[in-house]
Amino acid sequence: MTQTPLSSAPLVGAIEAGGTKFIAALATAQGEVLARARIPTETPETCFPALAAFFGAAQEQHGKASAFGVASFGPIDIDPASPAYGTFTTTPKPGWQGARFHDVLASFGAPIVVDTDVNGACLGEWMKGAGREKDGSHCRTLAYTTIGTGIGTGVVRDGRSLMGISHFESGHIPCPHDHATDPFPGNCPFHGDCLEGLTSGPAIEKRWGKSLDQLADDPSAIDLIGGYIAHLATSLVLLHMPDRLIFGGGVMKAPGLVESVRRQTQARLAGYVRHPRLDAGLETYIVTPGLGDDAGITGAIALACQTLPQ
Amino acid sequence: MTQTPLSSAPLVGAIEAGGTKFIAALATAQGEVLARARIPTETPETCFPALAAFFGAAQEQHGKASAFGVASFGPIDIDPASPAYGTFTTTPKPGWQGARFHDVLASFGAPIVVDTDVNGACLGEWMKGAGREKDGSHCRTLAYTTIGTGIGTGVVRDGRSLMGISHFESGHIPCPHDHATDPFPGNCPFHGDCLEGLTSGPAIEKRWGKSLDQLADDPSAIDLIGGYIAHLATSLVLLHMPDRLIFGGGVMKAPGLVESVRRQTQARLAGYVRHPRLDAGLETYIVTPGLGDDAGITGAIALACQTLPQ
Repeated sequence: MTQTPLSSAPLVGAIEAGGTKFIAALATAQGEVLARARIPTETPETCFPALAAFFGAAQEQHGKASAFGVASFGPIDIDPASPAYGTFTTTPKPGWQGARFHDVLASFGAPIVVDTDVNGACLGEWMKGAGREKDGSHCRTLAYTTIGTGIGTGVVRDGRSLMGISHFESGHIPCPHDHATDPFPGNCPFHGDCLEGLTSGPAIEKRWGKSLDQLADDPSAIDLIGGYIAHLATSLVLLHMPDRLIFGGGVMKAPGLVESVRRQTQARLAGYVRHPRLDAGLETYIVTPGLGDDAGITGAIALACQTLPQ
Repeated sequence: MTQTPLSSAPLVGAIEAGGTKFIAALATAQGEVLARARIPTETPETCFPALAAFFGAAQEQHGKASAFGVASFGPIDIDPASPAYGTFTTTPKPGWQGARFHDVLASFGAPIVVDTDVNGACLGEWMKGAGREKDGSHCRTLAYTTIGTGIGTGVVRDGRSLMGISHFESGHIPCPHDHATDPFPGNCPFHGDCLEGLTSGPAIEKRWGKSLDQLADDPSAIDLIGGYIAHLATSLVLLHMPDRLIFGGGVMKAPGLVESVRRQTQARLAGYVRHPRLDAGLETYIVTPGLGDDAGITGAIALACQTLPQ
């Protein structure tokens, strides 16, 4: 039996931390996954030792990781200048508040980059998915929005996710909402009829007792939800001017929805933003994800690579 | 008579290009203005030679500029990677379409940085105005909005203005607008009742036949306009998470307006964004400008300084 030679090219460790499962990977900087594990998201007491064991064994087999990237559920502190960088803050998930990725990864002695799941997915799409052009180049400014159980947007500019005092919270922007034609009050515990209160998966379930893809034969349902999402798309265009907008997540799988978002975004912009990137029907401007389930771990790999010498 | 010695510290040239006048300055990198001129905004044929003459004479007296910064009305190409960088694009101002700042400045043989007027004002406030803290430090992410003849927002992150495929266009975001309580249809030629169509100076004049400061004794007028501006403030918070938001421009001079914007922004956020920077009444979070009329030229100086070795 031949011993697998240790790699001389830089390797990175990556974690996609979701609400139900963690995906951990040891990969090359080019994104080739050498080892991979799926760990249920129970508590840090079970999850962190399993991560440590995976990375310990994988590095022994393939070589040491030069950096770690984490794309995680939250809320989590993603400010590298903060003493609590990488720490779960006010998450309602039992046991996770105060847990810190550095607790499990610091012993490996490599830099650690932590970002949100949606920023990670945006970065993954930027690196290898719908943020790439046919000629292999990358969008300079890419916005990725997930419309699912919750709603969030990541914006990547020149390969780095943007943030301010915290990550963005696009799900909670107020929407024009005509109560006469749409009396549903919304289900956001903070705002009622903010975007998330009107268009998240649970809001749609509460409104109609079914998911949006079960309503695909009802154009008025698709257009109602599409209109609210188009309000976000329009706001993102005017306040970030992305090269492209990606909309993913469970709700976006409803047939006809992305087409409705394109049509209603175009109507709202009304020809004001003129740029070759905004094609006639917005078909290349507003798109669905290119990577599917791989966006998160791809983004975590890309996060780790940000610390490597170029 | 003693000859003024040529400065050994780096100097910069700066232009604040407005719709009615240009301010040109030769200054130290610390912002001390050594020479200054006011040139009416007529056509490039009159304006550019006057700029060239001013900078020629000022540099002869004080020393050569190591860089030039321009904060200009637009629309103008502000993408340094574009071949048309620094060129007026679709401006309706007679004679200016196609004019390029490099045409007048390139002969001085120094780097040229061109940005929009509102980005320049944001950068000026970041450098020396309301974007500074008491301890002299700067906001990491600062949003500056002007509400006047038009509406625009600049966002500075770590001393650089953000952009995507173009500068931002916050004036045209759609607003929740209850036509039953506010039947004014808006006056934006593109969107009708976008933010600018509802709250710009000309929109207010069209609605009430007077300016908002003449309506200061009518709290309902102040709160109506304040509510629309609060929609922008809320969207900026959720999509940029600034350390602070500055609101300036002629309309914001109406007594009681900034207080109304604070109150209504707080109501819209409804406690969702928790961060020490969002103080109880948002009094240090949503503010008016610190520099007044000097923000533009200060920002132009800061733009030029971006090219100097740190």
